[in-house]
Amino acid sequence: MSDTTKYAVFGAGSWATAIVKMLCENLDEVGWYMRSVYAKEHILKEQHNPSYLSSVEFKTEQLKLSNDINEIASWADVLIFVIPSAFIHAELKKLTVDISKKTIVSAVKGIMPETGKLVGEQFHDEYNIPFENIAVIAGPCHAEEVALERLSYLTIACDDAKKAQAIANNLSSDYIKTKTSDDVIGIEYAVMLKNIYAIAAGIAHGLGYGDNFQSVLMSNSIREMKRFIKKMHKMKRNINNSAYLGDLLVTGYSVFSRNRMFGNMIGKGYTVKSAQMEMNMVAEGYYATKSAFELNKKNKKKTQLPIINAVYDILYEGKDAKKVFQKLTDKLD
Amino acid sequence: MSDTTKYAVFGAGSWATAIVKMLCENLDEVGWYMRSVYAKEHILKEQHNPSYLSSVEFKTEQLKLSNDINEIASWADVLIFVIPSAFIHAELKKLTVDISKKTIVSAVKGIMPETGKLVGEQFHDEYNIPFENIAVIAGPCHAEEVALERLSYLTIACDDAKKAQAIANNLSSDYIKTKTSDDVIGIEYAVMLKNIYAIAAGIAHGLGYGDNFQSVLMSNSIREMKRFIKKMHKMKRNINNSAYLGDLLVTGYSVFSRNRMFGNMIGKGYTVKSAQMEMNMVAEGYYATKSAFELNKKNKKKTQLPIINAVYDILYEGKDAKKVFQKLTDKLD
Repeated sequence: MSDTTKYAVFGAGSWATAIVKMLCENLDEVGWYMRSVYAKEHILKEQHNPSYLSSVEFKTEQLKLSNDINEIASWADVLIFVIPSAFIHAELKKLTVDISKKTIVSAVKGIMPETGKLVGEQFHDEYNIPFENIAVIAGPCHAEEVALERLSYLTIACDDAKKAQAIANNLSSDYIKTKTSDDVIGIEYAVMLKNIYAIAAGIAHGLGYGDNFQSVLMSNSIREMKRFIKKMHKMKRNINNSAYLGDLLVTGYSVFSRNRMFGNMIGKGYTVKSAQMEMNMVAEGYYATKSAFELNKKNKKKTQLPIINAVYDILYEGKDAKKVFQKLTDKLD
Repeated sequence: MSDTTKYAVFGAGSWATAIVKMLCENLDEVGWYMRSVYAKEHILKEQHNPSYLSSVEFKTEQLKLSNDINEIASWADVLIFVIPSAFIHAELKKLTVDISKKTIVSAVKGIMPETGKLVGEQFHDEYNIPFENIAVIAGPCHAEEVALERLSYLTIACDDAKKAQAIANNLSSDYIKTKTSDDVIGIEYAVMLKNIYAIAAGIAHGLGYGDNFQSVLMSNSIREMKRFIKKMHKMKRNINNSAYLGDLLVTGYSVFSRNRMFGNMIGKGYTVKSAQMEMNMVAEGYYATKSAFELNKKNKKKTQLPIINAVYDILYEGKDAKKVFQKLTDKLD
């Protein structure tokens, strides 16, 4: 990818807005597709996103804003998708232009609920994108801290090391440090799994477990994550790198994580439906739990996933959170 | 060790009080040495420790309390030391009875500042205790949550597996789950090192770094801890087990950790002396930093310890925390 490579972000939530901000530190023009006409008009008029990270001021002359996904998709070379996994399917249906020659970057923190596939896999299977043109952006990174320009670290994974480095360079700045990796699949799984463990942490908190237990839960979570990813995609990786362990920690320990908040409500006795209605959204980890459970079920040699199974039993089998966690505590160490 | 094995705790801080409570769930009589005559009299009269975990009620008929270290040391078979490392040397000087046949358990969360030795090593070298009679108790475990009977997990390490199991059994209860390990040295180092990383986390917080950075710091800390321990005592261990990673997390993420608090004051601009005076104590990690730095210096093939070196430079070389951390951020990933 040359210096004239054009980048575009698809989505207008807080993480999308943060990524546009990072790119604006390096590029003259950044494409930005969003569904909402109101949000687009507001950004053009007020120089900030009306609903997310509204403290971040943009120079609108740097933005190529559009409500037409095809316009931005055909303009850009690198397409960064930052749409919640529940909505990405509906957005992609609008795509009529050929994107098979584009570089696709997933910053979706979840799995496609309709197919149970990783976002990268979905693009590979549905749009014939070769794997060397598929990348993933991973944290640990709360968007809110990017808005505050607090130092954060990103990992960009791609099979093509040069591509990973080029994307990393365009995201780097005084407050963003980047590293690259070739573990696209492992990192996509990690990003997805950490949301399940954040739900588990929330449930534990809601049930009244304390900090001692929370640290045991996180210690068991990273070991379970390692086993899961190893089974799905065996390669040499250090699970304690920031993209895996760091991302788990920033999510599991954050009171702002929506997945942890969702779990907390379940632990406090809300039903799944009432927690989702109360939050006015579906936490990514909700879908991830089902996908992870089913992916493991498909395997002939199942991996021991006591935490994922516990969350699954509570969210999908209607089992009592207190009882399920009592049993779970015997399986942790 | 038979059922009639006698256990005693040396120390009267919060962690000592928590361990006495755990033992009282299982044993008819627990020996308890403390220096303070006042504390002893108060416990006998009011059934609780006047200064630490005072919500915990004891049945005084279960306690064999004494201000005479030799009385308790000669009475007990298993001696559990829970004295801050800064004071243990002075306490041990009072010992005149032969303890060479006793089982020594360290629940000291630090290193002997006078010798730079692990507590287990010190007992081995000074009192001829064979290594199979030396054990260590590790968390992750805030004493305050034991007082609240919140579920916590302990690891008891001893070369003699039966001994480890016997001690574990006597600490287990409805709210304490235990596991055993044979990695006495590795776990003692982990317990000591985590306090340094908690100081680092505190410094980062004091300097204004956010949650994204904190998770990167913890992810780098566990990798650094793994390298350090491997160099000191090579054996097969999973650094993500609760006794290593869990304990690091409960300390590094706790706003109640005295080490983290100490670091936070340094980050906010206090000098080391003024922070220590303000806290009216010396955080264990302060000594641990020096010991870890010097242990690594002695090695011919030095291990890369960017976090420990940064904390050392700030605490012992009077370097500016802000500048040291700016450099450190380039070494993390």
